[in-house]
Amino acid sequence: MREHTLPVIGRVHSPYADKFAVPRQPNLAPHALSSLELFAPYGSPSACEGLAGFSHLIVFFVFHQVAPYAGEHSFKSKVRPPRLGGNERVGVFASRSPFRPSRLGMSVVELLGLECRQGLMWLKLGGADLVDGTPVVDIKPYLPFADSVPSAHSGYVDSRPGGMSVRFTPQAQADLQDLGADKLQALTEILSQDPRPAYRGTGADEHRYGALIYGYDLHFKIEGDELVVLDAPKKG
Amino acid sequence: MREHTLPVIGRVHSPYADKFAVPRQPNLAPHALSSLELFAPYGSPSACEGLAGFSHLIVFFVFHQVAPYAGEHSFKSKVRPPRLGGNERVGVFASRSPFRPSRLGMSVVELLGLECRQGLMWLKLGGADLVDGTPVVDIKPYLPFADSVPSAHSGYVDSRPGGMSVRFTPQAQADLQDLGADKLQALTEILSQDPRPAYRGTGADEHRYGALIYGYDLHFKIEGDELVVLDAPKKG
Repeated sequence: MREHTLPVIGRVHSPYADKFAVPRQPNLAPHALSSLELFAPYGSPSACEGLAGFSHLIVFFVFHQVAPYAGEHSFKSKVRPPRLGGNERVGVFASRSPFRPSRLGMSVVELLGLECRQGLMWLKLGGADLVDGTPVVDIKPYLPFADSVPSAHSGYVDSRPGGMSVRFTPQAQADLQDLGADKLQALTEILSQDPRPAYRGTGADEHRYGALIYGYDLHFKIEGDELVVLDAPKKG
Repeated sequence: MREHTLPVIGRVHSPYADKFAVPRQPNLAPHALSSLELFAPYGSPSACEGLAGFSHLIVFFVFHQVAPYAGEHSFKSKVRPPRLGGNERVGVFASRSPFRPSRLGMSVVELLGLECRQGLMWLKLGGADLVDGTPVVDIKPYLPFADSVPSAHSGYVDSRPGGMSVRFTPQAQADLQDLGADKLQALTEILSQDPRPAYRGTGADEHRYGALIYGYDLHFKIEGDELVVLDAPKKG
């Protein structure tokens, strides 16, 4: 067997219009809700029977915002993980980088509910780190006795990425006044992960950044340990 | 995107010649060691740089001992998980059954060591539940802050499967005298998981079972809560 082909069984709907602002692992922005739409025939209520008894799922997806893997001749053995500041390189299999031969991602997410729409199931997910439109190839129930190893050592990734404080200017508050409290909390969690491209380093900088989240075109800058949202015009 | 294709990057070498005796989740037989052989070009030492700092890996593999998925027209939405005695049915996405459209499996395993052989890396794995020859499509480092949810609820799979006691007859002890202490312990862990096909139920029965493990053709029966190994001729 040289390769393996999987059907795409569904698609993610999330606040993240592009990969720029997506938290770098799941569960870092627990108030950011996403939905998983399952396609026919996979999304029948029958195929999800029993799923509501599980609090967490494992979602298997394709990193569709990077170019498809072009075969052995294109294999690059090293990547620059954001965690190491984007400069140091490690082996691709010692990373969770999307630039892996499989282009396969995996996230443990909270299952908050199931809903049937026109005969097909939609799953409500909490804490997902998935770009809007992400193709999903499988879901499995999370089994703590098999999947949870709280004491595992994790090399250079030795802790949860830290939170910055987030401040909204009066202009940004005005722009976001219709967002709602839950989404505002989610947005704050997302931004506190410091969604700047990693190669910028982690110190202060004067650059003005942008990210499209919940349909708002957020502009922000970094001042010391604080992320300042300057404004957030509604897109489109 | 209707489907996604992954390259096979390696192959498992394990004590389990067939799926019959494989523990039904990882970490149930921690002394059962396996190896993961990575193929060229994926197995270069460079691609594994940094991996030795992680105690656990997530292995993504293909369930190659069931027929390949034959497309949407063949999709079956229900399976009979062993945990429910093999009679009750649940939705395939509420199970870890191999009979899922992706034919994709995932196991959290302990990384016990790395070795370079003729320029390609071999990883020594503990607690793997993988049949010998299993094709591997990806490995990722395990990150407890993202992957470990000890408090997750898991529906009908509410605890670790239980251990039976295991007894070896004098004949079986004689047959297995060259196996070595570590493998004998692993074998005991494997058998204590009650590797009978689930549809037999969980009570006592008089049937004589067989399983090929570590190259020995084990024969056993069940007496009450005890699994009795009758004999274990060396195969081939």
